[in-house]
Amino acid sequence: MLKEYCADRVVIVDQALKDAVAENGFPPVIYEAMRYSLLSGGKRLRPILLMAAAEAVGGKGDNYLDVACGLEMIHTYSLIHDDLPAMDNDDYRRGRLTNHKVYGEGMAVLAGDGLLTAAFEIMLGQPGVEPAVLLKVVREIAQAAGPGGMVGGQALDLASEGREVDADILRRMHEGKTGALFKAALRAGALLAGGSEAQVNNLTEYGEYFGLAFQITDDILDITGSQEVIGKPVGSDVKNQKATYVTMYGLEGANVMAREAVDRALTALKDFGPEADVLRELAMYLLTRNS
Amino acid sequence: MLKEYCADRVVIVDQALKDAVAENGFPPVIYEAMRYSLLSGGKRLRPILLMAAAEAVGGKGDNYLDVACGLEMIHTYSLIHDDLPAMDNDDYRRGRLTNHKVYGEGMAVLAGDGLLTAAFEIMLGQPGVEPAVLLKVVREIAQAAGPGGMVGGQALDLASEGREVDADILRRMHEGKTGALFKAALRAGALLAGGSEAQVNNLTEYGEYFGLAFQITDDILDITGSQEVIGKPVGSDVKNQKATYVTMYGLEGANVMAREAVDRALTALKDFGPEADVLRELAMYLLTRNS
Repeated sequence: MLKEYCADRVVIVDQALKDAVAENGFPPVIYEAMRYSLLSGGKRLRPILLMAAAEAVGGKGDNYLDVACGLEMIHTYSLIHDDLPAMDNDDYRRGRLTNHKVYGEGMAVLAGDGLLTAAFEIMLGQPGVEPAVLLKVVREIAQAAGPGGMVGGQALDLASEGREVDADILRRMHEGKTGALFKAALRAGALLAGGSEAQVNNLTEYGEYFGLAFQITDDILDITGSQEVIGKPVGSDVKNQKATYVTMYGLEGANVMAREAVDRALTALKDFGPEADVLRELAMYLLTRNS
Repeated sequence: MLKEYCADRVVIVDQALKDAVAENGFPPVIYEAMRYSLLSGGKRLRPILLMAAAEAVGGKGDNYLDVACGLEMIHTYSLIHDDLPAMDNDDYRRGRLTNHKVYGEGMAVLAGDGLLTAAFEIMLGQPGVEPAVLLKVVREIAQAAGPGGMVGGQALDLASEGREVDADILRRMHEGKTGALFKAALRAGALLAGGSEAQVNNLTEYGEYFGLAFQITDDILDITGSQEVIGKPVGSDVKNQKATYVTMYGLEGANVMAREAVDRALTALKDFGPEADVLRELAMYLLTRNS
């Protein structure tokens, strides 16, 4: 059931993303470079989480596609910049050459800048939402994506290269790099669809543990995964001497932590009925994912 | 009078910018890198234009400092990314080492990303404005800064390196690189302060010609200016074999075009009284500026 739900949602989101960058502006190459990375078949996890959160509070996920697409565009820009030679220097992403390998470093920087900026443009045009609510939601997303969130996590990662990383730093790094945007996706869905304060708080907690479980299982996949399935070389964390949940706690320890995080994510949903089943399944899927 | 007006405004804007990035988040280095470029003594032309436009329609410029600061943060991020080795590869800016020369390329990319994202956060928190108006204004700024505006202009610049550039491409490049954000500053000020449609249109036209005059005089300064005064090496356009208004029309031709653009900017203000004198003086100042 989760598989079908996600497949349906991916179709809807992919079409909306295509529309969002369909314009053939000038010069064409910047739009090509943006599309190359945006339309390369991601899991669309952040848009799906936003829509599922809206549904958990009784709303209709499809009503908030503009904000959902904005989240995916922000996520994609962060991957493009993260892959740059000056950052992680990765050649492959989702089974294809990274943006800068195809378009060159300068254009890849600009493609990321373009996606980040266009994300705000599209989110701020979301129809059917009270302007004051939309302002609050997009502002929260900006905060989550900025130096106090995702950009801060990336900076911490970069600044930690070649240094001893303790458990606290590792946690903060990942809260920034991935956790903040996951949490923002959950909150956005709940707030846009008019969830109560208690619902928003519960979904926020779910988002925090979901993000943690995602990161731990991501680190596990870097060791146990298959390049064919995950679309990028395995073992890249080891190659880059990066601290991960596996290097810090061992494979078994990391597995235990992932299960605990998923348990807590599920507990955060205890006041919801079947309308939150998608979120429950999404959390459980993290424990069995292979990409 | 203009000098004093601008000096007063710079003090106000600088303080607001300091407050905007005052937070000592984690890791400190990303905030340091953002502050390094943001607080390096720019002319704050975009915030000043926004405030002056608000005043031209009878508003109070200081009321819109958050949006004004956002414009300066967007401008600053674009300079940081533009200076990167993969782009213009500049070592000096405003008389100091460029961001990547001090913090490294990776951190400079992130400092730019952080400023761009934080710009939206601060703009969306602007108090004292109808939420629907603020949404519209910030969305326009996103559009002006994105692939249809500034990022598109940068991409065109990058894609044109080493190629023949005709007058049409040069115009489009600069409309994107600098014109779009100047125009957005004027429109933002007028819209935030509740200007009439006619006033907004007139200030939009002023903004277009102001931007053109700014770019032409910028190109002239690259030939005739002094490194000590403008803070970056002169002749860099020639060094980089860039098409400019001077290479395209000659020094005298460029001077004539700059005067014409200023004339048109002034004409666009003909329905305004003395409340637009600052804008008039700002346009005229472009013809005599030395930095």
